[in-house]
Amino acid sequence: MSDTTLGPATTDQRLLRGARTRQAIARHAVDVASLDGLNGLSIGKLATDLGLSKSGVATLFGTKEKLQLAAVASAREAFLDAVVHPASTAAPHGAARLRALTDHWISYAETPLFTGGCFWAANLPDFDSRPGPVRDALFGHHRDWVTLLTTEFRHAAETGESAPLDPDLTAFQLDAVLMATNTALRIGDNTAVPKVRRMLETFLTPQ
Amino acid sequence: MSDTTLGPATTDQRLLRGARTRQAIARHAVDVASLDGLNGLSIGKLATDLGLSKSGVATLFGTKEKLQLAAVASAREAFLDAVVHPASTAAPHGAARLRALTDHWISYAETPLFTGGCFWAANLPDFDSRPGPVRDALFGHHRDWVTLLTTEFRHAAETGESAPLDPDLTAFQLDAVLMATNTALRIGDNTAVPKVRRMLETFLTPQ
Repeated sequence: MSDTTLGPATTDQRLLRGARTRQAIARHAVDVASLDGLNGLSIGKLATDLGLSKSGVATLFGTKEKLQLAAVASAREAFLDAVVHPASTAAPHGAARLRALTDHWISYAETPLFTGGCFWAANLPDFDSRPGPVRDALFGHHRDWVTLLTTEFRHAAETGESAPLDPDLTAFQLDAVLMATNTALRIGDNTAVPKVRRMLETFLTPQ
Repeated sequence: MSDTTLGPATTDQRLLRGARTRQAIARHAVDVASLDGLNGLSIGKLATDLGLSKSGVATLFGTKEKLQLAAVASAREAFLDAVVHPASTAAPHGAARLRALTDHWISYAETPLFTGGCFWAANLPDFDSRPGPVRDALFGHHRDWVTLLTTEFRHAAETGESAPLDPDLTAFQLDAVLMATNTALRIGDNTAVPKVRRMLETFLTPQ
């Protein structure tokens, strides 16, 4: 029986099931890649983990690169939901938003949202030497995040919530220190979290 | 003919040749691991790269873990020779030493000493979730480096070469930013290097 003999409702349900399965696989791929890196992904292993057929997973994603791109998109969505959206809802622009973003970022790494901690901390160093669409997506999201921090630091400086500062430089520093904090948390070193908070407060102290 | 029938000079030469070969393999393993990570190392691939027999390489190292540990030791030695020793010879403790260490670190990442850039930036995020002797060695060297920076920042603060600062926090920040600079350099982003220098000068400006 081919799809053309099915009623429209049945086709919709099939498509919906396919989309949901694709989403579930991509989300599991994020967990695996947060631990073993995006290069550690394999369609066969994901299928085994989730009790699906390898050919079914292959049909949904096509190539390993498409699977990697789906994982990157899924990680981004989860990150926005866990860090950026709640901080943006809870706090106005400037110092308050920066504190909220940092707090949510720390929870994101501490809890952690993905099995292996921060998805970008695990994958940027791996992909920095591999040009291609996966690297472009990873670094594009990372740039968006640093740009967001830059905008908030600019706002804080312009409204006198901080001493005069270079927003680009300060955002670069905060992001670098958050990445280092993720690594520290992974090896059970809890001294990094208070360091980030102290650093942020130093930036946000008006002169 | 077994070794026991050889004169002592011949045995010494064989051992020396073995040690040199081991060193050359470990150094090549560092280059591979700076690109693909220590988990990407394979005794077979290293043997092919260097035109050696797989069994010969296996005899020299035994297990993959021992090969990884030899690569970590080789990377550390090369890093000390490229960054720590020349900076320590050229500059007295404190601000001058911190500038020299940062300059040598930037050259180490820019040139780069290893094919894939900083060896620790490539491998710490990979091994943060893999307890064992390789992780211990990697993180032990990283701790030594941050401790070295801490000592120099303390000296700079105590002698009035910088504003009062928290040496632990400042060393943590400088190291995090150097790691982020390595990633930026790998994707051809040259804006990070002047940021590191500006950050360091901010720390080293007496109040």
